[in-house]
Amino acid sequence: MRTPIKHCRSCGTEVAYRLPPDGDTRERAVCPSCETIHYENPLNVVGTVPYWGEKILLCKRNIEPRWGKWTLPAGFMELGESVAQGAARETVEEAGAEFEMEDLLSILSVPRVGQVHLFFRARLTSERFDPGPETIEARLFSEDEIPWDEIAFRTVRETLERYFADRKAGRFNVHTVDID
Amino acid sequence: MRTPIKHCRSCGTEVAYRLPPDGDTRERAVCPSCETIHYENPLNVVGTVPYWGEKILLCKRNIEPRWGKWTLPAGFMELGESVAQGAARETVEEAGAEFEMEDLLSILSVPRVGQVHLFFRARLTSERFDPGPETIEARLFSEDEIPWDEIAFRTVRETLERYFADRKAGRFNVHTVDID
Repeated sequence: MRTPIKHCRSCGTEVAYRLPPDGDTRERAVCPSCETIHYENPLNVVGTVPYWGEKILLCKRNIEPRWGKWTLPAGFMELGESVAQGAARETVEEAGAEFEMEDLLSILSVPRVGQVHLFFRARLTSERFDPGPETIEARLFSEDEIPWDEIAFRTVRETLERYFADRKAGRFNVHTVDID
Repeated sequence: MRTPIKHCRSCGTEVAYRLPPDGDTRERAVCPSCETIHYENPLNVVGTVPYWGEKILLCKRNIEPRWGKWTLPAGFMELGESVAQGAARETVEEAGAEFEMEDLLSILSVPRVGQVHLFFRARLTSERFDPGPETIEARLFSEDEIPWDEIAFRTVRETLERYFADRKAGRFNVHTVDID
């Protein structure tokens, strides 16, 4: 997803991968000219599990990857927002939903792609949706209607499974999940 | 902390800040030559609340910012690790502690600096510590010994306050906190 660092973002010089002189134990892209050290770190993906009574809102993706598959509203967290603010923003952008944010439900690490996904429960306050350009369709599903074979991402499937399990148990928890 | 993006990481050309052509609503650093779009996103800081019976482990910082102030072991999450793995790694690096990881305790958004801090409880299995170069001293404190006026960061203070409150209540929760 991210292109490799070949040039210094400060001065444009070609970088070298080496151990920085500050005692760091990992090789970084270091600028031989201005000595800027360039770090790469995991990205957060923030979203919601929007619910209307017994039903859950899913969005059919109008973008790659997984075009046409179903997902929960979610996207990359931006600078200047909290995790909950980012999750709410994505829910507006992708589903055009009206809702009230509730508690954190899941935090899933996906080290293979350098991502952390965080989902909050969100109580829908309307059945009307207004999907943005990244969504073909936004639709409510009861648990037995969920298209499990057509879910776009494992993080979404794992989050939905925990949502329904917690709902049955009558108590919601925060689930910390590692995905290989 | 991060230098501004002035040059394309792929080809070194000077970037322009503008709306990308893909419908994005935020200005990004876009390369006029190879058209790479450069995103900047929040960083995760991961750490632990290491405890030994009634006592908590704090580390006296040997680095700026807040040199000489007390903190919980924590640092930037790296690519290729989960949040819990990163928190454990930092606890080894900064305190040289032996411990078993427990549940997530706090997740604190700090939009002003583009960071999310996540702390796990960690049960110490030894009273011996071996602080790394970033730590002057690692020491156990009971609640009434905590140097509240000498705590390095608000995220650490807020996490410690919730740890002690939960311990008194006899039940640990996951706390989602927004820090202005």
